Amino acid sequence: MTLPMLLNMIILVSEDQNIDLGLTDQFILSFGVTWVVIQYDLEIDHLPKTDEHITLQTQPSSYNKFFAFREYWVLDEAGNQCISIKSLWVAMNVEQRRLAPIPPEIVAPYHSEAVRLTPRFKKPKKIEQVTASREYRIRYSDIDTNIHVNNTRYLDWMIDLLPYDFLISHQPAHINLKYDNEVRYGNTIESKYERLTIDDQTVTRHEIYNNGNLAAVANFTWQPDGEVD
Amino acid sequence: MTLPMLLNMIILVSEDQNIDLGLTDQFILSFGVTWVVIQYDLEIDHLPKTDEHITLQTQPSSYNKFFAFREYWVLDEAGNQCISIKSLWVAMNVEQRRLAPIPPEIVAPYHSEAVRLTPRFKKPKKIEQVTASREYRIRYSDIDTNIHVNNTRYLDWMIDLLPYDFLISHQPAHINLKYDNEVRYGNTIESKYERLTIDDQTVTRHEIYNNGNLAAVANFTWQPDGEVD
Repeated sequence: MTLPMLLNMIILVSEDQNIDLGLTDQFILSFGVTWVVIQYDLEIDHLPKTDEHITLQTQPSSYNKFFAFREYWVLDEAGNQCISIKSLWVAMNVEQRRLAPIPPEIVAPYHSEAVRLTPRFKKPKKIEQVTASREYRIRYSDIDTNIHVNNTRYLDWMIDLLPYDFLISHQPAHINLKYDNEVRYGNTIESKYERLTIDDQTVTRHEIYNNGNLAAVANFTWQPDGEVD
Repeated sequence: MTLPMLLNMIILVSEDQNIDLGLTDQFILSFGVTWVVIQYDLEIDHLPKTDEHITLQTQPSSYNKFFAFREYWVLDEAGNQCISIKSLWVAMNVEQRRLAPIPPEIVAPYHSEAVRLTPRFKKPKKIEQVTASREYRIRYSDIDTNIHVNNTRYLDWMIDLLPYDFLISHQPAHINLKYDNEVRYGNTIESKYERLTIDDQTVTRHEIYNNGNLAAVANFTWQPDGEVD
């Protein structure tokens, strides 16, 4: 399973839950807002293999006036957890394209915990010295509905910079990915990365810029892929 | 359903059938070859919508010494055919990367018809006057296993050239897509297209070049998307 596929699948699980609870896109839009994910924190023991049957679980765990905290778990066929994901969501006013208070009606059905502070996410560390960078034009195949760039594409632009030999011999163990600004159809973004070794582990730091503005930033920790093909 | 997703799904259906018949990748590779699709001809009444349940059918219909002809059908929830696809396959010697005679052992389990000539596919018409062109670098996310570029990417590179307003208001009705030469990871390809009106229908002709060599060519016939969103 690729990382973009993983992120697409957990979004589908959230949507399934939302629909089950009557939280359709139309209902949410009736409050003038849409949900936007602003950060993911992924702990990956291993990524599922072809033909494996997996179970995806999700729980909207807590929320406050502006932030909602949702967790995901991926279980392998034996029921062992192979991935856990924490995510932070905000409500965006669709007309102003700006952060809005979360309408109580769109979180009430979750029966999740109202908190003063949602769990804190670490801020991904910025690049100190660029190892490589490249430009990417947003393609028609990169967008979902509404000229919105699929959130998983940022991962493609980040990962694509890494050498092929590295990618086929390593697996991500931890990813901290923060979305800062929207990227839109037709934009050309710049993806930069830095590769370094911290405590004997390979770490990569990534930044996506859109017209000089930071659009996304991420830190990856990698582990050698122990498997023999 | 996007066109790339459609092509990915029919490949999965073929693979499922192959595995059911003992025609695993390993078994096929034991003859030094792999199956390669060289042409698709798609007749599209409509593409399936989100959440629709569809049925995919396939049949390896006939073959001769060098070519195998396989058909696919997509049925909607009511059992009506919404897409039919004809495809032409060859066996490629994996070491020489060259066309090879089809080993009888890898077609026998299909009980398909041995013929002198497989059905003839029209050759897609070449571009006469380029409407627009653009370069695309093959990304890590474009490749499957073995540094092989996913066949559906060619469609992305072709479609991406068309204006956004055209794409959201039109559906492909017929596609004739021919693969001529392999494109590999790290290559930069050039996608060109021509848009013209033939018998009141919008037609686009597409060519993908890799280092000046034709890698793929396609003709699309489009229909206005009658649906009101």
